[in-house]
Amino acid sequence: MTQLSLAREGIITEAMRKVAEDEGLSPEEIRDKVSAGRVVIPLNVKRKFSPKGIGEGLSTKVNANIGTSGHHADLNEEMDKLHIAVASGADSVMDLSTGGDLSQIRKAIIDECQVMIGTVPIYGLAAQLDCEDREIVSMEVDELFDHIEQHCEDGVDFITVHCGVTQEAMSKLKKTGRIGGIVSRGGSLLAAWMKHNQRENPLYEQFDRLLEITFKYDVTLSLGDGLRPGAIADATDPAQLEELTTLGELFRRARNFGVQTMIEGPGHVPLRQVEANVLLAKTLCDGAPLYVLGPLTTDVAPGYDHITGAIGGAIAAAAGADFLCYVTPAEHLRLPTVRDVREGVIATRIAAHTGDLAKGVKGAMDWDNRMSAHRKKLDWEGMYSEAIDPHLARSMRKESENYDEIVCTMCGKLCSIKLTNEYL
Amino acid sequence: MTQLSLAREGIITEAMRKVAEDEGLSPEEIRDKVSAGRVVIPLNVKRKFSPKGIGEGLSTKVNANIGTSGHHADLNEEMDKLHIAVASGADSVMDLSTGGDLSQIRKAIIDECQVMIGTVPIYGLAAQLDCEDREIVSMEVDELFDHIEQHCEDGVDFITVHCGVTQEAMSKLKKTGRIGGIVSRGGSLLAAWMKHNQRENPLYEQFDRLLEITFKYDVTLSLGDGLRPGAIADATDPAQLEELTTLGELFRRARNFGVQTMIEGPGHVPLRQVEANVLLAKTLCDGAPLYVLGPLTTDVAPGYDHITGAIGGAIAAAAGADFLCYVTPAEHLRLPTVRDVREGVIATRIAAHTGDLAKGVKGAMDWDNRMSAHRKKLDWEGMYSEAIDPHLARSMRKESENYDEIVCTMCGKLCSIKLTNEYL
Repeated sequence: MTQLSLAREGIITEAMRKVAEDEGLSPEEIRDKVSAGRVVIPLNVKRKFSPKGIGEGLSTKVNANIGTSGHHADLNEEMDKLHIAVASGADSVMDLSTGGDLSQIRKAIIDECQVMIGTVPIYGLAAQLDCEDREIVSMEVDELFDHIEQHCEDGVDFITVHCGVTQEAMSKLKKTGRIGGIVSRGGSLLAAWMKHNQRENPLYEQFDRLLEITFKYDVTLSLGDGLRPGAIADATDPAQLEELTTLGELFRRARNFGVQTMIEGPGHVPLRQVEANVLLAKTLCDGAPLYVLGPLTTDVAPGYDHITGAIGGAIAAAAGADFLCYVTPAEHLRLPTVRDVREGVIATRIAAHTGDLAKGVKGAMDWDNRMSAHRKKLDWEGMYSEAIDPHLARSMRKESENYDEIVCTMCGKLCSIKLTNEYL
Repeated sequence: MTQLSLAREGIITEAMRKVAEDEGLSPEEIRDKVSAGRVVIPLNVKRKFSPKGIGEGLSTKVNANIGTSGHHADLNEEMDKLHIAVASGADSVMDLSTGGDLSQIRKAIIDECQVMIGTVPIYGLAAQLDCEDREIVSMEVDELFDHIEQHCEDGVDFITVHCGVTQEAMSKLKKTGRIGGIVSRGGSLLAAWMKHNQRENPLYEQFDRLLEITFKYDVTLSLGDGLRPGAIADATDPAQLEELTTLGELFRRARNFGVQTMIEGPGHVPLRQVEANVLLAKTLCDGAPLYVLGPLTTDVAPGYDHITGAIGGAIAAAAGADFLCYVTPAEHLRLPTVRDVREGVIATRIAAHTGDLAKGVKGAMDWDNRMSAHRKKLDWEGMYSEAIDPHLARSMRKESENYDEIVCTMCGKLCSIKLTNEYL
């Protein structure tokens, strides 16, 4: 039984109760939203941790991608990334490893991790084929499903599957053309396979097989956007919309089957189109939880894409996106370092909280009010304790002269707060 | 004669011609917008540099605040900040020094600087009073106007003057209350003086005197928002709106007088109110150029306020703000370092460009398209050359293994672009 199938029987699970408590909502409300497919609680039946809910009316959650690549595979470093991601406030971690002993890495991360874990099973399969000197186009359909089942069996809480990259969507892509083409790894792997083998996407064709596997473990499906725009100019094009329409159909099939499901969204999207993209996804997919990557509001800022992602993520969250995948400063340049992971998580949490203030999420505003009250009193310890990154706030101030004075070195004696408190 | 008074006589100046060329618009268009007060070209008659326009229909400009404080005053460091700000793409620099030999620092910056320069004259006066062991409330009105004239005589291109902090606005502030109170230095200095001396704001009462001084040098007025909200909870309150209404009146008086004028905007503003704040300013102030500080979309992120500012700035620019004052990671903690200046300028340029894409500024989209075309070809030198910070993009990639390979260490052989180019 899954959280969804239990909710549909009217049952309130322990996980639903925990989510309700976290969010300050009633357990009945959570159950009803899970039952409608508007909230998911990714929690593999094999795992034990304090679960979180993702979806309508809940605070916006943040995911951090970690994992090795063929060019850089160091388990210890990935464990460091895991720890810093969680310590910095990530609500979930995706292991996207494609280098080293993938099974060992995945198991080590699952053993250690106290937040939900996602993977993209086709990555591991592609890496394995490469090790065996086989081309990706030689992939057997059974290998893909076996790989997916293995991830579920290992205890992963959600998996990204690019079921919407259909022949129809590919033909729309070809007709319209794009500057950036396909920029999703999973999407490009499947598209290459589909073109070479002249076959339909097996994840679409055999979607029920996917549902059977994931139902068994209550693994949440994250329906990937394999055709997301990877350039501002490509946003909201026919291929993207065709895929999204398919994801809506598959969402309804999954919901009927009792499998928890989220929808993934773009990508590179100019500011004026971000809200419309959220509304499209929510409308075409019956209010399913929406998981966005960024979106990045410009293509020109490699090295600063945690900022372009925070801009787009804040607007997306305000418009109703429920789950933000972080983007790190390393995006478009290299595998992120431990430091990049921290910067990515914090930038994305800023976006999520900005969105929560806009959505009126319960309690969101209280945090800002506590901070501002400390600021008005020039209570530095209070400010550090409420800062999104207390350690950084404290250490930055301590770098400056006379840090223990009541004011800071920005304005010194001309501090507006000091003046106001003294004279007004 | 000022750019504005010349424009009203139908004259197209060399400066207008230069701005037209930069923006890809006709000189007549620029002249008409300057004449209507919708575009300013800050350029003190005593200065020679390649001027820029700020206002409706033009690309969004970025300002970097530099300057010493009583706690940290090192001229060499400020010159380094000036150089890095301009090298990073700042369109203007404000010298907000309040520590050391202020006159020497200002002149050194003006001598060296090849972009427009702004100051807040009351800061220097307050610092001087402090040196003389006089309280700010002992300030003589003539001292303030003398100080303003000195800045104009020194060659400053625009000055921030908090003319809208009136007794009426103060009484509205008192009636409503605020978590953060007054957070503008200039605003709090004037408010303290007004309360102690039971007098009206001299910059409001003797506004014509200000116009006479600034007209002579064609110094652009930046009508400061002394009552801007410094906490999310305080945004868009009666005091802020009263001040903004006054700024609108003063803008019209300045325009009639022939003095170029901009309006300054908030502050700390939740995402859902940013666009409304821009529309209010543009409506109450007849489409005057709008210069915003951030806005910061949450109070909780000291150490990362370049990011909260980039979120708010992007949305503000998209809604019509013309000039973004940067916010650095040091905001709320200490005086910015040289490194902070660079991060602040780049983050704010990202916001400005995101806004330009949304506003449809001529040529803005071409930049993204060039970058994405390089990305699609995996042309790394092309990507570096188009990056908003080419040095950082190159050095980040070079930190990773095998950096000279065609792909990057993020995906390695599973690069979606490589796969797409090979198979599709």
